[in-house]
Formats: sequence, C-alpha cells, structure tokens
Amino acid sequence: MALELLLILVGAAVILAVACAALNYFITKKLKEGTDRMQEIAAAIRVGANAFIKYEYKIVAIIGSVVAALLIAFVSWQTGLAFIIGALMSAGAGFVGMKIATYANVRVTNTANETRDTGKTLKTAFRGGSVMGLCVAGFALLGAVIVYAVFGIGCHQINDVIGTTKPLWTNWTGLDAGFTMTLSGYALGCSIIALFNRVGGGIYTKAADMGADLVGKTEAHIPEDDPRNPATIADNVGDNVGDVAGLGSDLLESFVGAMLSGVILGCELYAHQALLTGQVQLLKTLLLFPMVFSGVGLIGCVIGIFYLLLIPLKKNTNVHMQLNIATWISAGVSVVGCFLLSFFMFKDFNTEIMKTALGFKAGNLSPWIAAILGIAAGIIIGIISEYYTSYDYKPTKGIAKSAKEGSALTITEGMATGMISCMLPVIVLGVAIYGSYAVAGMYGVACAAIGMLSFVAATVSVDTYGPISDNAGGIAEMSFLDPEVREITDQLDAVGNTTAAIGKGFAIGSASFATLSLLCSYLYAFGGIDAVGMVTLNIVNPLTLVGAIVGAAIPFMFSGMLIQAVAKAARHMVEEVRRQFREIPGILEGEAKPDYKTCIEISSRGSLKEMKIPCLIAIAIPVVSGFIFGAEFVGGLLVGAIIAAIMLAIYTGNAGGAWDNAKKFIESGGVEGVKKGEEGYDGVHDAAVVGDTVGDPLKDTVGPSLDILIKIMSTISLVMVVVFYKYNLFSVIIK
Amino acid sequence: MALELLLILVGAAVILAVACAALNYFITKKLKEGTDRMQEIAAAIRVGANAFIKYEYKIVAIIGSVVAALLIAFVSWQTGLAFIIGALMSAGAGFVGMKIATYANVRVTNTANETRDTGKTLKTAFRGGSVMGLCVAGFALLGAVIVYAVFGIGCHQINDVIGTTKPLWTNWTGLDAGFTMTLSGYALGCSIIALFNRVGGGIYTKAADMGADLVGKTEAHIPEDDPRNPATIADNVGDNVGDVAGLGSDLLESFVGAMLSGVILGCELYAHQALLTGQVQLLKTLLLFPMVFSGVGLIGCVIGIFYLLLIPLKKNTNVHMQLNIATWISAGVSVVGCFLLSFFMFKDFNTEIMKTALGFKAGNLSPWIAAILGIAAGIIIGIISEYYTSYDYKPTKGIAKSAKEGSALTITEGMATGMISCMLPVIVLGVAIYGSYAVAGMYGVACAAIGMLSFVAATVSVDTYGPISDNAGGIAEMSFLDPEVREITDQLDAVGNTTAAIGKGFAIGSASFATLSLLCSYLYAFGGIDAVGMVTLNIVNPLTLVGAIVGAAIPFMFSGMLIQAVAKAARHMVEEVRRQFREIPGILEGEAKPDYKTCIEISSRGSLKEMKIPCLIAIAIPVVSGFIFGAEFVGGLLVGAIIAAIMLAIYTGNAGGAWDNAKKFIESGGVEGVKKGEEGYDGVHDAAVVGDTVGDPLKDTVGPSLDILIKIMSTISLVMVVVFYKYNLFSVIIK
Repeated sequence: MALELLLILVGAAVILAVACAALNYFITKKLKEGTDRMQEIAAAIRVGANAFIKYEYKIVAIIGSVVAALLIAFVSWQTGLAFIIGALMSAGAGFVGMKIATYANVRVTNTANETRDTGKTLKTAFRGGSVMGLCVAGFALLGAVIVYAVFGIGCHQINDVIGTTKPLWTNWTGLDAGFTMTLSGYALGCSIIALFNRVGGGIYTKAADMGADLVGKTEAHIPEDDPRNPATIADNVGDNVGDVAGLGSDLLESFVGAMLSGVILGCELYAHQALLTGQVQLLKTLLLFPMVFSGVGLIGCVIGIFYLLLIPLKKNTNVHMQLNIATWISAGVSVVGCFLLSFFMFKDFNTEIMKTALGFKAGNLSPWIAAILGIAAGIIIGIISEYYTSYDYKPTKGIAKSAKEGSALTITEGMATGMISCMLPVIVLGVAIYGSYAVAGMYGVACAAIGMLSFVAATVSVDTYGPISDNAGGIAEMSFLDPEVREITDQLDAVGNTTAAIGKGFAIGSASFATLSLLCSYLYAFGGIDAVGMVTLNIVNPLTLVGAIVGAAIPFMFSGMLIQAVAKAARHMVEEVRRQFREIPGILEGEAKPDYKTCIEISSRGSLKEMKIPCLIAIAIPVVSGFIFGAEFVGGLLVGAIIAAIMLAIYTGNAGGAWDNAKKFIESGGVEGVKKGEEGYDGVHDAAVVGDTVGDPLKDTVGPSLDILIKIMSTISLVMVVVFYKYNLFSVIIK
Repeated sequence: MALELLLILVGAAVILAVACAALNYFITKKLKEGTDRMQEIAAAIRVGANAFIKYEYKIVAIIGSVVAALLIAFVSWQTGLAFIIGALMSAGAGFVGMKIATYANVRVTNTANETRDTGKTLKTAFRGGSVMGLCVAGFALLGAVIVYAVFGIGCHQINDVIGTTKPLWTNWTGLDAGFTMTLSGYALGCSIIALFNRVGGGIYTKAADMGADLVGKTEAHIPEDDPRNPATIADNVGDNVGDVAGLGSDLLESFVGAMLSGVILGCELYAHQALLTGQVQLLKTLLLFPMVFSGVGLIGCVIGIFYLLLIPLKKNTNVHMQLNIATWISAGVSVVGCFLLSFFMFKDFNTEIMKTALGFKAGNLSPWIAAILGIAAGIIIGIISEYYTSYDYKPTKGIAKSAKEGSALTITEGMATGMISCMLPVIVLGVAIYGSYAVAGMYGVACAAIGMLSFVAATVSVDTYGPISDNAGGIAEMSFLDPEVREITDQLDAVGNTTAAIGKGFAIGSASFATLSLLCSYLYAFGGIDAVGMVTLNIVNPLTLVGAIVGAAIPFMFSGMLIQAVAKAARHMVEEVRRQFREIPGILEGEAKPDYKTCIEISSRGSLKEMKIPCLIAIAIPVVSGFIFGAEFVGGLLVGAIIAAIMLAIYTGNAGGAWDNAKKFIESGGVEGVKKGEEGYDGVHDAAVVGDTVGDPLKDTVGPSLDILIKIMSTISLVMVVVFYKYNLFSVIIK
C-alpha cells in the first residue's frame, strides 16, 4: 500500500473538520441575540475578551519572535519556521474558539428564553463548543501536514536521511536540520502559546472570580452573577479567556505533543536500525501511524459531534447522556479506526524484527493495545478524581462535614484529601506506562498518549460547551430574564462540570505519557543509550541527581508564583469592587450602574503583568541550566519536574474540586443539621466558601498550568539538547 | 597508629556523655518544685506523658518484635539482634529525655519564681534539655559500640570478610550475615522508634493544641494555657511527647543514619578494592572514621553544654547569645576535631589510590571538606527558612497583611510562600551534594551528613530546652504566679523558637544526605554499578520509572493521612472541650475545675489509634513492593519518595512557620491599621488564627515525620534488598 496515500486521508480529515467548524461558526453567528440588554452585556463580554487576547498575543508575539530568532540562529531555520507555524496554529485555534464562544453565549441564553427547550439550548451551546473542538484538532493536524509538506522532510526525504551512514541525531545541527528537530520546533510553537494562554487566562479568570466572590458573596451577600457586582462581567470574560481559549490551546498542545512524540520516538528508535536492516518501509510506517491515527480520530469526532447536532432531541432531553453518546461515538470510531490502522499498517512486517527492534510483543496489534491502555488509564483516572471530588462520595462529604468546625478544619481536610488522592491515579498511570511499554516499547507509551487524545475534538467541544453555558446563565441573570431560563442554562452548566472530571483525567494522563516520550527522545538525542540499545539516565550520577532535586522544586515554585499572581490580581479587584460599592451611590440597590469596564481592565492588566515571570522561568530554566551544566543535568531536571508536577497537578485538581463541591453539597442541604435557613448555616457555608476560594486558583490556574509546564520544559530541552550537549560551561570547566 | 585505640576514644566519649547526662538528671531532679498547685499540675503533665509513652512503647514493642522475628528469619540473627539494640537505644533516649523534661518544667517555673533571674532560669531549663541532648548522642554511639563489640564484626573481622574472594554483597544472606547488614539492622531499630515517636507524638501534640485553640481561643476567647481550658494540660503533655520524645528519637535516628551510612558506604565502596589491592588499613579507616568523628563531636558538645552550665550568667543575660555560644563551641570543637582526624587518619595512604578508588580529590582532607560543606549547607538552609518564616522579612509580613482580606487569602498566601520557598534550600542542597561528591565521592556525601549531626547533642539540648520553657510558662499561667515569671519563661521560649529554625535546616539537610547515602548503599547491594564502578540506577527503565512515580505519591499520601489523623483526634478534643464548657457549671468563671484527665485520654487514644496505619504503610510499601516487583522498582520508589519528601518537608515546614509568625506579627501590632484594640483587629486576627491552625499539623506533625519516612524506607529497603533482589514475584512471572 502506498503509505503516502494515508497522508491524503489526514489532509481530508483536516479539510472536513475545518469546514465543519466554519459551518458551525456561521450557523451560530446567524442566530438571534435577544433583547437590547442581552446584546449590551454580550458585547461587553466580547469586547473585554477580545481586548485581553489581543494584548496577550502582542506580548506572546514579541517573546515568540525572540525564541524563533534564537532557534533560527542556534538550531536551524526549519525549526524556527516550524515553531512559527505551531504558534500560529495554536493562537488561531484559541482565538477562533474564543471568538465563537463570545458569540454563542448570548445566543444560548436567547434560545433558552425563546424556546424553553433544553434540547434546543443544548444544541446551540454544543454547536458553539464544537467550533473550538474541531479547530483544536483540525489546526493541529493542519500545521503538522504543512510542516511535513513544506519542509519535504516527510516520507520522501526519509530515504535521504537514511542514506547517510550516521545515526540521525548526529545530523542535528546547523542547516542540516533533522526530521525530529523540525517537528520539535512545531510542538514548541504550540506549547508556548498554550503556556501563555493557560497561565494568562488562568490568572485572569480566577482573579475576576475571586475578586467578585470575596466582596460580592462574602461581604455584600449578593448572589453569583448579580449585575450589581462590578466584577461580574470580568468574571464572564474570564470564562472565555481562561476556560475557552486557555483550554483550547492547552489541548491543542497536548494533541500535538502526543502525536509528535510518537513520530520523533519512531524516528529515533528505529532510524538507526532501518539503516542497518534496510527496513525503510517500517520506519515510514512508524512515522506516519501517529498522524493517520489522529486523522481517523478526528473523523470520528466529526461523526460524534454531528450526531448530537442532527438527531432530534426531546424538550427535556437527558443532557448528560446525550453528551456522553457524542463522546462515546467519537471514541468508538477512534478505537475501531486505530485497530484497523494498527492491523493493516503493521501487517506486512516481520514480527521478529518488530519485537526485537521496537519491543512490539503483540505483533502488529501492539500500538493498538497500547492506545487502549492509554484510553483506559485516562477514563479510570477520571473516575478516581470523580470519586475524590464529587459530593456523592465520602471524601467530599467529609470536607463538607468538617465545615461545621470552621474554616481551618475545612482547609485541613481538603488538603489531606488532595494529598491522599495522589496515590491511586499514580498507580493507574504506572500500570498503563508499564503495560504500554511491555506491549509496544517506548513507542507504545507515545501511542497511549495519542490514544487518550485521539478524540480530543469531542472532549474539547464538551469542555467548551461548559463555559458557554456558564456565560449564558450569567447573561440571563444580568438581563433579568425569567428564572426558568437560568434553570435551563444551570442544568447545562452542571453537566459540563461533571464531564470535565473525565477530561481532567485525560489531561494529566496524556501530559504524563507525552512528557515521558519526549524525555526518552531527549535522552536518545544525546546518546543516553546502553549496550542493548535501551535508553538510560543514571539518576544517581551526582549531576543528574542534583538536577532532579532542583527540578522537583520548579513545579512548586511555579505553582506558588501562580497562586501569588492570582491573589495579587484578585486583591486589586477586591479594592476596586469595594471602592465602587462605597463611592457609587445606589449601586447595591440596583439603581446605579456599576463600572464594569474598570474591573475588566484590572483583570487584564493584572494577568498580563503577572503571567510573564512564571512563563519565562518555565522556558528559561532548562535552557540556561543546560548551557551551564549540560545535558545530564537537564535530564535530571526533567525527571524531577515531571514527577513533582504530576503529584501537584493531581493534588491541586482534586483538592480544589473537592472544596468546590463540598460548598455545593452544603448549599444543596446535604449536611445534616445545617440546611439553608437553619441556625448556623451561614457560619458553615462561610467556612466552605473559604475552602472554595482557596481551591479556585489551585484547580483552575495551577493544576492545568502544571501540565503545560512539564511539556514545554521537555519540548524546549529536546529542541536545544544537541546545542547544550556540545557546548556547556560545566564540561569546559571540568575538562 | 593502632586504629582500634580510636574505638576506645569513642567509648570514652560515650561514658563521659552518659555520666554528664546522669549528673544533670539528678541535679535537676533535686531542685525544688514550688507551690502545691505547681506540683499538682506538673504531676498531671508527668502522669499523662508517662501513660502515653508506656502505651506507645507497648504497641511499638509488639510491632518491633514482629519485625525482629522477620529479620531473624529472613535476613540473619545478627541483624535482628542489632535491630533490637537500636530500638532499645532510641526508646531509652526518648524515655529518659521526656522523663527529665517533665521534671524540669516545673523546676524552671520555680527557679523563675524564686529568683526572678533569667540567667539562672536559663540554666535550669538548659540543664534539663542537656539530658536529652547527651542521651541522644550518647545512646546512639553506645549502641553502635555494642554492635561493633558484640558481633565482632568490627575491625578484627574485616580481614576475614576480605579473606573471601567474593564481593561483600554476595555474602549477605542467611546466617553468613555481612558487616553492613548488621549495621543496617541497628539503624532500622532506631528508625522504627523514631517513626512511631514522631508520628504518635506529632499527632498527640497537635490534636491537643488544635483542640485547645479551636474552642478556647476561637470560641470562648480565653488565652493560651488558661487553666479554665480542659485541654490545656493535654497540650502541655503534647509538648513533652511530641517536641521532646519525638524530636529526641528523631535526631538519634538521623545521627545513627548519617554515621552508619558512612560506614556502610565505606565498606561497599572499598571492600572490593581493598581485597584486590590489599589496602586493608584504608578500609578499616573508612569504617572507623564516621564513628570517631561522631565521638569527637560528642566531646565537643559536652564542653559546649558545660560551658553554659558553669559560667556565671547575669540576671538579664542575653539568652539567644548564650545558647549560640554553647552551640558554636560544640560545633567548633567538632570541626577542629574533624580536621585533625581527617588529616591524621588518612595521612599515610597513597593519594592516588584514594583519588581513583574513592574519589578523594583533596587527599586526606577530603572527608573534612565534605563535612564542612554539609555544615555550611545546614546553616544556610536554616537561614533561608528563617527568611521565609520570620516576621522580620517580606514573605511572612505579606501573609500577615493578607489576613486583612480574610482567611482565604491568608491561606493562599501562606501556601504560595511555602511552595516558592522550596527552590532556594534545594539549590543549596544541590550545591552541597555535588560539592561533597566532587571532593570525596559518595563517601563525602555521607561525611556531609555526619558533619551536620556531629554536634547533635548541643542542638538537641537547645531544641529540648524550648518545650521545657514552654511547659514552664504554662505551669506559671495555670498556677496563677506573678506575670513576671511568665515573662521570663516566655523570653526563653521565644529564643527556643528562633534557634529551632536552624535546627530544621539541619534536620532536612541531614535527612537528605543520609538518605542519598543509604540509597547508594542500596544500589551497590544489588550490584547496580556500571563499567567504571560508578553506582547506577536507570530512571527510564520502565519498572524503575513507575517506581519513582508511585514513590513520589507516598509522601503525599502519608502527609494527607497524618493531617487527617490530627484533624480527627482534634475533633474529638473539640467536642470534649465544648461538652465540658456546656456541662460543667462555673467552669468558664474559674469556679469549677475542668476535667483535664479525659482530655489527656482523648489525645492519647486518638494518637495511638491514628498513628498505626501511616507508620505501617511506611514500613510495608517498600518491603511488599520489593517482594512483588523487585529491587529496581524499589530503587525507583526510593528516588521518587526522597525527592517528593524533601519538597513537602520544606513546603510544610516553611508554610506552617510563616503562618504561625504571621499571627504573632499581627498580635505584636506589626500590621498597620489593625493594632490590638483597633476596629477590625479581631477579624484580621481570626483570619491569621485560621492560617496558624492549618499550619500547625503541617509544620509539627507532617514536616518532621517526612524526614523519618524517607529514612526508614531507605533503611528497610537496604536491609531487605538481597532478599527481594533474589526472590520477587515479578522476576518469576517474567522469566
């Protein structure tokens, strides 16, 4: 079979996805916006979100240009250019997805208002979300196809590369840029946008949220999304820049990272062998499989998404079930497609060669089994985090109960739950890593990551539909619509929160797998392989050990800085809201209009200012320490950072989620003796609000950013490895 | 020089130290106790502490017997017996030190009351503390000397061991127990007592403290140590079982761990070489140096301690300065002694052999330089934690300021500070690890640990004097003595808190160094050495990698369980205190006597019940997973656990300390606009109290227990390694 034809399949999937995204974009935009007040509020949110993203992209453009210039100067022009393509794809997906989200929100409100039909409202919200979902996967693959095509380092150049007698990694400097290097550049471009969007958006959204809550709920005792609260529009803007644009770029980055780590590993694992055995076709297959698998997954997602958009829904449809069906269809097509690809693409190769050279213990189905293990791990981790954070189970109920004893024990209990919750997911992760390795070698670990993300378009659609519904509810509240409208949007929003738990399992799982693949690629690149061709890193080499210890402190420091950034920005917001309550007469009676714009500006300015240092640190530490202490040190640094970041990501995510839901449990009257209206309820609720407020930046800013932190650290190290393996201060001094 | 003579020096140091401890014990006991009320309160504290420690030792005796039986059955009778000796030494030091602390406390109050002389009171308190200090180092060395002497595996047997043609580690099974194995058994015995004393004591003291504060301060608004609070005696008992007995066994364990990791490493590093080159004398020197160095350090401490007890002190002496002088004298003698030992003991050996075989780059002074690096690292880490936790500096001031915005931001700010504070100590640690390795190989890393702990008797004396003064203050308060008495004891107590910061630097530093040495010994033991004799552990071997990821979750889970344990016990205490306030009429007016005894029982029962599972997990995980997955997995497990535990220990220690001092800063009127008595002060103070309460179990239960966790995990793995390297389920299945 002509393997090149499969690339056409990928191209077709990309065109299909982007066309569907465009279709849904314009259908959504054509819907009616509702009353003047609704239009006015929606416009305020839209203007705020656009302004922020433009400012942010300006900053990123400057930093990105510097990085691109450095890459061109020190690595290769191909890498630099691929970096720019990656950055554009990621930035584009974030921008388009956010744009449509700010159009969709008010239209969801209006659909709910006009039809009072949950099914129709669900469709409007999901159509908006699907634009982001399809753009994420479509743009990611589009960029990869462009990189393959433009640089001609796809299949038709592999023969040239193999034609040399040197292993690939010795070709990695100067203009003679290798295959993997250019791809790493592409991944790095996606990463850098993801880092800034996640961190900037995360700070923005939580600063607005905390600011609104701290004064609104705690001091003025007005409800969420109350139009009297000056920070309420900023809060809604935050949902768009954080939970939509941030999440989109983040998952685009994960998707690219997983896919390319497979390609790069395939290249490094086997290029040398292919050279010796002449099995060029197998090498080609290894390099194409991740892309084709991703393409098939994307087609599956288009089917799943349009299933939900096209089937007739009842007025009181079961939202949760419908979303699940859409996701399961997408995942099912991916899994079946992967089986067929794995079966046919690897069918004609010698089983013995695959076993010895690649560790494919289960023959041509090895990559598929590894992918299944990855998907299973993602689902189980999601279920575990559901257990620790949902108020249907003991841990969160325990936190809610401890709120009776005040805020200190609420915090203590939530911390403890988060810490304990690290063990089970990590065991699942461990089993999946070992299993996918046992069945398909290091390539299998990459396949597991690709498996988790193969139906990313569907999961992102669901993830984006959540904040759109959240925003829609806010607009309903602020436009004084019938409470029934709010009920419909609240229902959609609540389901979004539940499905997000599984999404988190995939996020942390795929980040771990992809990062480990990247780490292995990194180690291959500087020749860290032992006598039997196994990649190695001796952790008790003192330089590596010190690297690991220092590396483990990076996620802690990064997390601490993000928390402080949120707190700092939130504090300014608190002051501004207090000032408005104090200085604008009649504001709390609803007679005077609050100054929303100043609040939006404070959140924007604050997050743009505060995001720079943590982001730059994430990029600079591996590069600078690589130049000073060399590649072994950075290897240790990555190991330490990955291990610590996985723990902190699970801890912050679960502790934050548990606090959030403990509060909701109390509000829903779940704790005995302190139902709403009963004596002592306020005290207990206040204690729970403290927990929720502490958890907010942990789960929505720190947790998601940690995934990117380790990926960008690994990617940038991979891009730079040859440079600082050869030229580092330390080896000069020692020698 | 006859090396054996040096062992006599160690023996003399032991006899000197124990004799001095006995002398101070009886001098202290002979002092007067004061009024009837004082005697009554002191007796209540003493009875409570004794009852707890007896119960605890009963539980430990059962678990210890099981472990000893298993060691005898599976490893060797020597290891089992050495284990028992270690357990007895550690338990003995904890018991004696706690006993005298419960005698000293009331005598300190009485000295202050009778003399109103800070100098004299300081002497009484320090004399009491010195008993613990001298016992810790004395008993530790005594046990080591016994193990050397009884088993005859000291110097005179080395020749027999070397007489075989096999490397040492192949001799490690059955009755043919090797040298290192028996020593590991001794260290394990000390560890197990330390684990239970630290964890049990830590839960006890914080349950009582939190229970007393949560109702007393927050609800009833009565001050600390108020006799109307039923939990107040339990709180004082807690100081003795947690901060005295727990700390004593902990540091005894660190001391033994550091010393023996040096001996074991010396043996493993060089036994093989000694066999080949016939340099038996150098091997003997390597094995004796750690013990002799420790002995000399102990003599230094006797000098330092008696300097403070014997010089005349002014009535208003500068307590801080006097304690520092005593510590510096002890440290100075240790450093000078180490220089002389290093110079003379290693003088006659071939520099080239030491360089190539051991990595002694600086010739015979290499061990000394490594020790200096360790001491310097400990001091700098202490200063850094001082920076992050003292209210003289920005971070803690920032937390205090954020209390103005409520408890949520206080918690957030403290968390962030704790997380950020991980980086600098870890860099210092890294530099010291790399430096001591560069100058004296892996043996140098052990020497750095020994250096930090060589003057442990002095630091423990100071550390113990703190809780004695704290207790003395409590007794003064409860006995309605003149406020001036309380002022004197408060002054002593405050200085104790400051000096404790440096102590923490040594605790985490020495734990890291000792654990890394133990890890290397572990890797040597199963032959994890590469072609050039360098010890190796390939972290990207999938089994090891999975081990590292799972291992990193252990400290998180362990911490979470401890926090929950404290919260659970504290909750019972809260209920009991509330019950007494409700049911005993006149209790808050001081007319009726609270039921102290029930509170003591609750704390005892709670901590004894709650300590078991976390402790058993710490012991069981490495053993069980070793039997199932083998030695490589456990190697990864240890690496992951060590890295995560170092981070969490720094994080919890600094966050907790900062919250504590932020509260004190507010109380001292440091925050503008909210001085005591001003409007809004109560709200700000309450927010700070929440931070302090959250921080309490972090800094006093979790942080110190993490040090022991990684040490006991490493020690038990080292003892068991040969067993599960040969017999594990996984290798059976795979093969």
